[in-house]
Amino acid sequence: MNNNNSGWLKTVSLPSPTLQNNTADADRLIRALKTRLNTDAIDIDLDLLRRLPDLIRKSNYTVRCLLFKDRQRWLIVNVTHSQENNSIVGLAVDLGTTKVVGRLLNLSTGQIIADSSFDNPQLSIGPDILTRIHFADQEGGLERLNKLIIQGLNSMIAELCRSCKLATDDIYLLSIAGNTAMTHLFMGLNPHWLIREPYIPVTNRPGLVKAVELGIKANPLARAMIFPNVGSYFGGDLIAGILFSGLNRNEDTAILVDVGTNAEVVIGNKKWLIACAGAAGPALEGGVTRMGMMAGPGVINKVAIDPADYQFTFQTIGGLPPKGICGSGLIDLAASFFLSGMIDIRGKLVPSQCGRRLTEKDGIQHIIVVPASESGTGTDLTISQADLDSLIRSKAAMYTIIATITSSVGIAPKDLATFYVAGTFGTYINPESAISIGMLPDLPQDSYKPLGNSSLGGATMALRSYEFLEEIDNIRDTITYIELNVNQEFMNRFSAAKFLPHTDPTLFPSVKVWSKQ
Amino acid sequence: MNNNNSGWLKTVSLPSPTLQNNTADADRLIRALKTRLNTDAIDIDLDLLRRLPDLIRKSNYTVRCLLFKDRQRWLIVNVTHSQENNSIVGLAVDLGTTKVVGRLLNLSTGQIIADSSFDNPQLSIGPDILTRIHFADQEGGLERLNKLIIQGLNSMIAELCRSCKLATDDIYLLSIAGNTAMTHLFMGLNPHWLIREPYIPVTNRPGLVKAVELGIKANPLARAMIFPNVGSYFGGDLIAGILFSGLNRNEDTAILVDVGTNAEVVIGNKKWLIACAGAAGPALEGGVTRMGMMAGPGVINKVAIDPADYQFTFQTIGGLPPKGICGSGLIDLAASFFLSGMIDIRGKLVPSQCGRRLTEKDGIQHIIVVPASESGTGTDLTISQADLDSLIRSKAAMYTIIATITSSVGIAPKDLATFYVAGTFGTYINPESAISIGMLPDLPQDSYKPLGNSSLGGATMALRSYEFLEEIDNIRDTITYIELNVNQEFMNRFSAAKFLPHTDPTLFPSVKVWSKQ
Repeated sequence: MNNNNSGWLKTVSLPSPTLQNNTADADRLIRALKTRLNTDAIDIDLDLLRRLPDLIRKSNYTVRCLLFKDRQRWLIVNVTHSQENNSIVGLAVDLGTTKVVGRLLNLSTGQIIADSSFDNPQLSIGPDILTRIHFADQEGGLERLNKLIIQGLNSMIAELCRSCKLATDDIYLLSIAGNTAMTHLFMGLNPHWLIREPYIPVTNRPGLVKAVELGIKANPLARAMIFPNVGSYFGGDLIAGILFSGLNRNEDTAILVDVGTNAEVVIGNKKWLIACAGAAGPALEGGVTRMGMMAGPGVINKVAIDPADYQFTFQTIGGLPPKGICGSGLIDLAASFFLSGMIDIRGKLVPSQCGRRLTEKDGIQHIIVVPASESGTGTDLTISQADLDSLIRSKAAMYTIIATITSSVGIAPKDLATFYVAGTFGTYINPESAISIGMLPDLPQDSYKPLGNSSLGGATMALRSYEFLEEIDNIRDTITYIELNVNQEFMNRFSAAKFLPHTDPTLFPSVKVWSKQ
Repeated sequence: MNNNNSGWLKTVSLPSPTLQNNTADADRLIRALKTRLNTDAIDIDLDLLRRLPDLIRKSNYTVRCLLFKDRQRWLIVNVTHSQENNSIVGLAVDLGTTKVVGRLLNLSTGQIIADSSFDNPQLSIGPDILTRIHFADQEGGLERLNKLIIQGLNSMIAELCRSCKLATDDIYLLSIAGNTAMTHLFMGLNPHWLIREPYIPVTNRPGLVKAVELGIKANPLARAMIFPNVGSYFGGDLIAGILFSGLNRNEDTAILVDVGTNAEVVIGNKKWLIACAGAAGPALEGGVTRMGMMAGPGVINKVAIDPADYQFTFQTIGGLPPKGICGSGLIDLAASFFLSGMIDIRGKLVPSQCGRRLTEKDGIQHIIVVPASESGTGTDLTISQADLDSLIRSKAAMYTIIATITSSVGIAPKDLATFYVAGTFGTYINPESAISIGMLPDLPQDSYKPLGNSSLGGATMALRSYEFLEEIDNIRDTITYIELNVNQEFMNRFSAAKFLPHTDPTLFPSVKVWSKQ
């Protein structure tokens, strides 16, 4: 494939007009592109029409067109001289509740130029979506939230372009993947009904929108493709994640798990996709244990306990003195406690096995993970029985959701070909630890595939080929979203999953406790 | 048909959302409309999305939608409460080089509310299109021309709405029919190449454009449908005229003639349409005879000569004292001169038959049409031999064009079922006179159908039904535009047509000279 003609850029030579062939400039161009793209529907904007006649004559009827696609319709976004070397850049955005990540890529080669991220400025209104949606109900609230995110994006765009020696005008296409609420706030759509039964978004398919209409400072002709959603609780970020994982292209049934406060789960293959979301509990994010925090510099993300001497070894992000522990570290820790016999199958501390690490604060038992002398905070980093209980509820919820969704399609968790784990959690988690505590099913370790920022990954793909745009629509239309029915069966599963690794150890044949107890 | 659901307005009841049916607001609405309109492509704008959730809940899921169509795609222009009685108004515009006419109509009933017109403010740049196109080449010239017409339209819209007790915001749809050059100036498109071989417009199909993008002050959601063109010399005004005449719906072959400085001619039926344009000479508009002028108050538009006493009787527009004579009056006059023997079959004055009416000014023979004592100018209104020669060239050109185009499709002028005559010319012309001088073919008088402002008529129809929008596209795609080949055969025809009524009197059996000569 000629780079100049890959993806969205097509160089076409038009027949020169004559008295016998006096078709108008735009119609001549569209006719050539229709043949090239084998389509019947190509649109062009007034802005571009106004520049077209000079442009096609100056380039002697051979022009380079930047096209984008919205469902069945192609749109001519820009037309330049065929020899012009101006950068044609796209921006993929993962529009997170907490963090927003942008990625510039070269639209003619598909190559990534640079990534950048910033804290969602809406955090100043509220850390969680619920607070922001309530704030949006106030007079001017939605406008304020919308302005915060748009200004934040515009600052990032300006900075990113400056650092890459590009102009913001070089950005012609954007793709935006966010959860349904963030997408609403980004578009200035009223999010009020998203959180009220029966949880109705304003739109499931925002489609292609002019960047200027959104207030985004890119090229005036730029278009933004906003990922569709399946509902209030299953947003474009997850559809981008599915696209990125390839779940929807697999012959074999696989599962994708995205864990935050909610665990979002998709199971399926190229023929079908079933999704559900459930509260996984907050143990896996910051805020619960006094030392629990999100992944970041100085946060413990890996822990091991030596079976020989019960010595703790840990790894922190950036190798800094430990300041806290994130979800994946917590899981490692719980797994080590369990395998070493420091906690029993109910997750309760076994004082005889904890030794000098056991301490008591305010009448509650704690295990000292990092003594004050080694910590980055100057105080002991500890884990309490309550923290462990909370983690166990989360891991039980996680496993129950997986068991329920697999059971609903008539397969066992162990029959899953691939287990995709999205996000930061997926990047840092040690599957062996998660299996040890019965959080994830006992699959061969190489079945686990961390995806990293799959939302950004999917948004990037959307800027690489129109085939992916079609796939996005197909994913959206294929997904069956099921409400988790919290009935007696679910509760039974949940109770069984609250043990380590489970009441039925045959589900976890690989888990071997090494405590000599 | 329920008025509320006629044309562009559709009232739909949406199923209320439930946990089992949690489709988004916009998608729910679009789904209902897709079923109703039996289509697969319905779009909605961001502006409207932002207002949608409140709107559909306040109207309890029964809403009135205003839709418009652009080729295969429907667009939701506005959504209101089903019981809302706000006026929904459309504006049809005949975008003339000299005069612009606007017409407000009620989009729910299709009824005309009011018409208004104004002189095209671009007249201050130049009376003709050519001057304006050259002006557009100057720095800022196109912007100035564009601003003039847009401001003129906005003033008319404001005034028209005020006089009808409507708000400009009540206007949601516009349809604009103008010649190709005026359409370019209206859209701010470069007209430079329209007048340079091979005469290429910027676009043949402007389609649907947001009124705000054009600078038009109507409802912010309003859309303008701009008539397509076949080329530089066959514009949207003529396509509107064809639509209005119904030429394209007839079984029998008919002809449509629009006479200005150019004569534009379309011949065809429901199966085919062939068009051409030729210089008809300026005799039929103002500027040639010293008394020749455009139709307007005090202008003679009908003349007769009494065979008994050779007395002239005339009729002026508005019944005012005569100030000049327009094309239709000139034709009447020439016919009367000829039938009474005052001019011969070459169109030369016959002094013996002219009597006291003959006079000489600056060495040239004139006939006094209105003596100074009866005229509105205080001077004699006269016609010179030169004026008559000029008229005869025009009438010969007209007949030659008709004879050439009918011959090109293998029929004789007398076989035409209907002869549509557009514009002011068509309104005032007396077919009997035009036949007498051999300008129009000798068809039964009731074959001649004056159309009045057919451009405005077609623009009005475009706002009444999407079936007409489809017809407009079909007309455009069906027309074969032929260049009049001025070869020897054409010149022979022209020479023969320079006689009154023709060298071959069998072509005009109804024409009987009553002069006793």
